[in-house]
Amino acid sequence: MNNSFSNGWLKQPIAPLNLDCAKAAHERQTQLTKPSGSLGRLEEIAIQLASLQGTIQPSVDRVNITIFAADHGIAAEGVSAFPQSVTGQMINNFAQGGGAINVLARTLNAQLEIINLGTSHGDTESLTGVKHYHLGPGTANFLHQPAMSQGQCSQALAIGCETAELAQDKQTQLLIGGEMGIGNTTSATALACVLLNASPADLTGPGTGLDRAGVTHKAKIIERAVTLHKPNINAPLDALCRVGGFEIAALAGMYIRGAQLGLSIVIDGFISSVAALTAEQLAPGCKQWFIFSHQSAEPGHRIILQALSAKPLLDLNMRLGEGSGAAVAVNLLHMACALHNEMTTFNEAQVAQKN
Amino acid sequence: MNNSFSNGWLKQPIAPLNLDCAKAAHERQTQLTKPSGSLGRLEEIAIQLASLQGTIQPSVDRVNITIFAADHGIAAEGVSAFPQSVTGQMINNFAQGGGAINVLARTLNAQLEIINLGTSHGDTESLTGVKHYHLGPGTANFLHQPAMSQGQCSQALAIGCETAELAQDKQTQLLIGGEMGIGNTTSATALACVLLNASPADLTGPGTGLDRAGVTHKAKIIERAVTLHKPNINAPLDALCRVGGFEIAALAGMYIRGAQLGLSIVIDGFISSVAALTAEQLAPGCKQWFIFSHQSAEPGHRIILQALSAKPLLDLNMRLGEGSGAAVAVNLLHMACALHNEMTTFNEAQVAQKN
Repeated sequence: MNNSFSNGWLKQPIAPLNLDCAKAAHERQTQLTKPSGSLGRLEEIAIQLASLQGTIQPSVDRVNITIFAADHGIAAEGVSAFPQSVTGQMINNFAQGGGAINVLARTLNAQLEIINLGTSHGDTESLTGVKHYHLGPGTANFLHQPAMSQGQCSQALAIGCETAELAQDKQTQLLIGGEMGIGNTTSATALACVLLNASPADLTGPGTGLDRAGVTHKAKIIERAVTLHKPNINAPLDALCRVGGFEIAALAGMYIRGAQLGLSIVIDGFISSVAALTAEQLAPGCKQWFIFSHQSAEPGHRIILQALSAKPLLDLNMRLGEGSGAAVAVNLLHMACALHNEMTTFNEAQVAQKN
Repeated sequence: MNNSFSNGWLKQPIAPLNLDCAKAAHERQTQLTKPSGSLGRLEEIAIQLASLQGTIQPSVDRVNITIFAADHGIAAEGVSAFPQSVTGQMINNFAQGGGAINVLARTLNAQLEIINLGTSHGDTESLTGVKHYHLGPGTANFLHQPAMSQGQCSQALAIGCETAELAQDKQTQLLIGGEMGIGNTTSATALACVLLNASPADLTGPGTGLDRAGVTHKAKIIERAVTLHKPNINAPLDALCRVGGFEIAALAGMYIRGAQLGLSIVIDGFISSVAALTAEQLAPGCKQWFIFSHQSAEPGHRIILQALSAKPLLDLNMRLGEGSGAAVAVNLLHMACALHNEMTTFNEAQVAQKN
């Protein structure tokens, strides 16, 4: 592939963290009426959010969740436990408010947006509350050809970019992306194998629920696809075009633009983390704006997180996607902020400090 | 010690779980629009709560948190990083609403009660919002004598029992206990060493923040105390009297009575888990009613949890006590219930199931 992408915005600078606020927040934590460090990661989160939001008293009241949905040509190879029609059916379910992410968004009082980037089955265009961009009836089957054209890939990245900009306009304090797309763990796994030069046998897992034979078959398909495309991949964008997905590209675009705009971003599970890895390779440094929510049950997730030096907050054996793990973690961020902002200090409460 | 305790209520039967509701809740989980099992521990929690609450649609809206505070004679041996006066000062801080548990309780809209079982410093009797039971100015120094008389131990257990009964009167759906008491990791560690026949060197940790030399000193004190008392300990109640604390006994009493009454109980960190272990040894089977919230940073906690076959929900490096880890975990329970109750089923949403 050549370098004819119109993706100049990817090179804009990443917003700097506010280290003065981080320092002041750390100082405040040592003054609160508790043994220093005894709130563990809740203290770290409060300090991290202070550095991201540029305030000593961070808060996470305005949460924006966007679900990017798309179909995958690779689904034709029998790599998923579910039929491809489920992607469109689940978009319909999200529009009706019945999916896991709908429930979580309501519980958090978060804004939820659904974006259909291109699906094969079902008439989802008539659904209210769903934005449509028909980049194609899903990606092409990357066992035989590149999943996306350069133009499709650029468009998907740009849609993610625009999502971050709209979230900023709404003064969003936490940006969450989710995904839905039958076959997308296959795409994400292939992409991670290329980006990390890792073996499909090490990274491939059951996704939505393959049995052992299914996982073996899926790993072989990924192995063949990676072997086909690798000679033509010279840069992360090439990898994204050749074995990625519309929703993975959109997530990566949203993460990069969010980091450029200085938005705090909560990363969900396996597929979102591969999008985060892609984002970090496309725009180094953007991962400073990421908060990793959870360790997924998908076995390859551990390797992706290690590559990002990420230490997720939760480990609940979740493997749903849709941004669900990120949404669950918002509670922890909310409590971390409340503790940080509302606890009294030793001086205020006249409590003696450590001997 | 003889068996002159007036603790007959400890022998009342533990409430049975509702296995029909657990089965129906499990069946419902398989019908929700997600791959079966993909919400991981959130599914397990919903099913467990269904069996505890005896309903297919559990909820955790009414949460009761009680903090039991008390002083410890063993603090005279220099086993804590903080002066003993902090126990009374923190009761004052809780009464003013400035402690971590106050913030968490407000965030959860939970009822919070503070019970002072006996402290050495400060005038806390005049504080509004704090219940007083002066069992003594703290326990006796168990390096030289039993921490409690049998009468004191019975009273502390009975106060916990009454707390559970009052919570039931208020139709509490989740019962949480917390503790505050300078020196209480020393007491809890000694108690666990006796109950599990474990070595103080293996179980002793920094508590509120001892350095390495401090931990070594603390372990030696515990070793000496355990050696002194062990020949006179024939039953869990003897152990509780000899090396326990007022607040640990009250927690154990609350846990046992809660399990007898059929209340779902969320267990906090190290000290609460030792109280849970004591409760389970005093009233076998009560642990069926426990939900273990988090893995504490206190290193011995892992051993206590293993002894209870407990798999905590969170691992956030917390070590504050006050019920804080249990309070943070309530969010997960709340989300687990919301997902379980509000997601649509495959049939309702017309989404295809697994191939």
